[in-house]
Order: sequence, then structure tokens, then C-alpha cells
Amino acid sequence: MYTISELQEIIETAIKKVEYPAEPSKLYEPIRYIMGLGGKRMRPVLLLLSSELFNDDVTIAIEGGLAIETFHNFTLIHDDIMDNAPIRRGKDTVHIKWGVNNAILSGDVMMVEANRHLTRLDVSVLKDVLTCFNNTASGVCEGQQLDMEFEQRADVSIAEYINMIRLKTAVLVGGCMKIGAIIGGARTEDADLLYDFGVNFGLAFQLQDDILDVYGDPLKFGKQVGGDIISNKQTFLLLKLKELANAEDLRRLDSLSSSTDHMAKVQSVTTLYNRYKVREIAITEMERRADIAFTSLEKVNIGTARKAELDQLARSLINREH
Amino acid sequence: MYTISELQEIIETAIKKVEYPAEPSKLYEPIRYIMGLGGKRMRPVLLLLSSELFNDDVTIAIEGGLAIETFHNFTLIHDDIMDNAPIRRGKDTVHIKWGVNNAILSGDVMMVEANRHLTRLDVSVLKDVLTCFNNTASGVCEGQQLDMEFEQRADVSIAEYINMIRLKTAVLVGGCMKIGAIIGGARTEDADLLYDFGVNFGLAFQLQDDILDVYGDPLKFGKQVGGDIISNKQTFLLLKLKELANAEDLRRLDSLSSSTDHMAKVQSVTTLYNRYKVREIAITEMERRADIAFTSLEKVNIGTARKAELDQLARSLINREH
Repeated sequence: MYTISELQEIIETAIKKVEYPAEPSKLYEPIRYIMGLGGKRMRPVLLLLSSELFNDDVTIAIEGGLAIETFHNFTLIHDDIMDNAPIRRGKDTVHIKWGVNNAILSGDVMMVEANRHLTRLDVSVLKDVLTCFNNTASGVCEGQQLDMEFEQRADVSIAEYINMIRLKTAVLVGGCMKIGAIIGGARTEDADLLYDFGVNFGLAFQLQDDILDVYGDPLKFGKQVGGDIISNKQTFLLLKLKELANAEDLRRLDSLSSSTDHMAKVQSVTTLYNRYKVREIAITEMERRADIAFTSLEKVNIGTARKAELDQLARSLINREH
Repeated sequence: MYTISELQEIIETAIKKVEYPAEPSKLYEPIRYIMGLGGKRMRPVLLLLSSELFNDDVTIAIEGGLAIETFHNFTLIHDDIMDNAPIRRGKDTVHIKWGVNNAILSGDVMMVEANRHLTRLDVSVLKDVLTCFNNTASGVCEGQQLDMEFEQRADVSIAEYINMIRLKTAVLVGGCMKIGAIIGGARTEDADLLYDFGVNFGLAFQLQDDILDVYGDPLKFGKQVGGDIISNKQTFLLLKLKELANAEDLRRLDSLSSSTDHMAKVQSVTTLYNRYKVREIAITEMERRADIAFTSLEKVNIGTARKAELDQLARSLINREH
């Protein structure tokens, strides 16, 4: 079995080898651009790891990994348009570089490219993989829709938020795990257990993201600590605070939302978080999701040794500091 | 074998039966809206007709027809955003009704829905159908890209224009024919012949569209005659005129392009078209494409009687007056 970094290299090499038509260059150049921006390629790596649980030949899953990574990057292009985001991984977003129309269209053709990768899989797994992929893809769209709607609402509940991040982020992780398992030849029960693992692990990962944005070590975090607070992003922490805070603190929070003194704002909101122990509550929720995930993984009907690499990767991602 | 109107009814009924999730309603409502705007459903009808050439049970091809119609309407939503179009089939476009962000996202999820329909096809044809569908879909995106680029260019050649409408319009007709043939169980040679039929028929259809926009009977045409002239749209007629006109007429054409007296503009440009016989040249090109199409259809290795309905539909569409 391969190590994580070997799997990353396998995916990175495969991504570099994908050929897109030369023309129309404005349609295909953005695809090369965003696929080349890098990242840890965690989604395809998880897909390969999942396949490897059941089949030593990891090469059978590469097209699945490429499909997921292409699909993920397509959603980034379109999300960045909708969110009006200028920067992605430290570079101009596609719609800034090529304009909105081109970004829409290049995204569309990436969705086709993702399906093209899947179509190259062995015909014996094609129908199950496509079914899972389509469910995953529409889930991600639903999550983005809810995310946009929640930005306009002041009364989002924790349950709604969890459902939104489940759709927007976690089902794709679940999809990676299940698609990898199907390609590797897993039985349906095991593929479904790995889906549950992925979804709950994805939720834990996102909750850790929310926590790190406030409590991450500034030297290790990579982004501006408190970025979510500055942009009034509705995270688990903020929604939990709104649920727990008394009237006076709610007024304080409300007045802070328009503050332009970013440092003071981050400090004051963090003080409120601390007052109501929302960090601890978030960690408890994260750990609960992680426990569900690892329980599902344990139930997968293969030897423990085979799961070691996946188990270790998942634990390191949840316990990450950046 | 079914008549065209029976096939239209089969598709219409199938479209009405498709269920989308209730929530998020802003994601799925636009899909119901655009799919309900009607139209002649020519693409899925052609797909069913093509399948019926090889297999009497037309029901096996319905999911293919739904996929194509869903995909086509997805491209309409995104094209209307890019073209800034306010009206589609006499109603508000999706981005006018729900906003651009929603229109992007509903379009994305329609692409998933299209693939979901295909995934329900018999596994024996799945790989070939998906391969054809993906090639078709990326062709359509390439065509839209070229169309957008050509709007910014004054030197588009006839060959470039034909290539653009081939990608933007005709390959989808070819895709319908080929996918229908594959589902029906055609041999590869016959499926490819039907693809050629579709592409060349699609080109002839689009050329007829260009001609009718100028020379259509105002009582039958349904749209404003001369609409392409008013909006300076680069059509076969305009590009051919630019190719043939002398310097003085080119100057005249150039000054007409900014005219706000629409009736006079349509009359004057039409006079120029008549002077250089571009209508006749367009008809010749249209008939040449139609001949190629019908020659391909003749070569399909089945009895002539079986092709009668398709042959008749295609001829009526090319010789239409609106």
C-alpha cells in the first residue's frame, strides 16, 4: 500500500498528464490554471485510499480521483463567481482573470470533463459510481444554494448549518470514499459504511476549520486568524453564541458586526466565544462526528492493518493545527 | 412506429413526470420553470426517432431524450446569462427571475440531472452513450465560447462561422441521433452515419434559421423579421455579404450598423443582401448540407420504410417557413 505522499504524487502526475484541447484557448486555459493551483489533493487521495482498502492495484481508481478533483475545482470556479471572491489559493480567481462569462463556461466544460473521467472506468462499476457521483454533485449544489440563502438570513439554526456544511462539504468526502470503495470492488455494505465515514469525517473537518479560524496558531494557520469573525461569516461558533448569549451580549455582538477595527472586533467576539465556551462545545460536536466516522470505519469488513493509513490520515486532518 | 406528435406527447408526458427535490426551492424551481416553457422538443423527438429505427420499443430511449432536453435547457439558462438575454420563449429568463447566482447554480444541477437520466439507461449501452454525450456537451460549450469571441471580432470568416454553428447547434443534433441509435442497438457504422446526418441536418437547419430571419413571412415567422439585422448579429448572410461587397457597399453596411431606425436598417441591409444574392448563396449552402445529411441517412443499413418518418420530419424542418 502507498503512503499518503505517494498517493498525492500519483494524483499530481495524473493531473499533469490530462490533456485538454488547445482551442478555444479561453475555454480550456482556465481549467489548466485552476487544476494547476495545487492544494493537498485530499479528495482524490481519499478516493484512492478507499479503493486500496479492497484492491491493491490503485491505478484502477485514478480516473475516479481525477473526476472528483475536476468536479471540485469546477465548483470552486462557480462558487467564486457567486461569492464575488477575488483570490483563490493566493492567486486571482478565474472570473477575475478571464471574466464571469468565461468562468461560467469553463466551469461547465469541467463538469463534462469530470464525467469523461468517470466514463473511462470499468463498465462493471460504471452505473454505481455514476449514481453516487450524481447524488454527490447535486448535494454539493444544494449546499452552495443553502450557503447563499443563509447569508441573507439572521435566524439560521445550528441544525440548518450542520445540514448546509454536510451538503456543501461533507457529502463530497463521503462520495470520494464510496466511489473509491465501489471501484475497488467493495460490497455495498462496506461502500455505504465508508460513505458514512466520509460524511461524518467531512463534518468534523469543517467544524475543526471553524474552530481553527478563531483559535488557530497564527504562525501555523496560513490564513488570517479571525477571518470568519471579520467577515461576519455564520460558523458553528457564531451560531452557537447567538443561541446561548444573553440579551446584552447579543446587542454587543450586533454592534460589533459593523466594526471596522478588525483586531478589536476579533478580540471582542473571541471574548464572547470564551464567555459561553463555544469553543469547547464545537470541539465536543467535532469529536462526536469523528467518533461516528471512526466507528463506521471500524465496521468495514476488512482487516484493521489495511485501514491504518486511512485512519491515520483522517486523525491527523481532524487534529491539524492549520 | 409513432408519429412525430405522438413522440412529442411521450416526451412531454415524461418531462412532466420528472420529480425534483422540493428543497432548496430556489435551486429546483428554475428547472421546473424552464423545462415547462415548452417548445417543440425536437431534440428528444429526434433521439426517439433514431432509436426507433432499430428497436420498436421506444420507451427504452425516453431517459436519453430527457437527458438531452435537460442538458439543452441547462445551456439555455447559462447562455442567457452570458448573452444578457431578458426573454426566452416570451417569458423572463431564469437569471432575470431568480438572479444570476441562482441561474448559474440551477444550470449546474441540471447538468447533473441530465447525467442522472443517462445513468438509468441499460448498462450495456451506458459507456457508449456517455462517451457520445460528453463529446457533444463539450462541443456545445466550445461553440458558445466561439460565439462569444466572434461577437468581439470584425473578421470572422464563413468557415469559422460554420464551425461555430456546427459546435453550438449541430453537434447536439448529431448527438441526439447517435445516442438514440446506440440505445436502439444500432451497429457502430449506422450510429456514426446518423451522427453525420444529425450534424449536417443541424447545419442546414441553422442556415435556414439565418435565411428566415430576413426572408421569413412576417405572418408565419413568429419573431420580428430582421431581428438579426437590427442586432448586427453575425450570420451566414452578413458574413457572406462582407466577403462579396465592394468598398462602397461595405461603407454603407458599416454606417447602417449604428442606425436606430430599425425598419429602414432592415430594408437597406436586405437590399444589399439582394444585390449580392446572398440569399441564393445561403440556400445553396443549406441544400448542400441537407444533401449530405440525407445521403448519410440513405446509407443507414435499414429498410427505407423505417426511415420515412425521420426523413419527412427533417425535410419539413428544413423547408419550414417559421
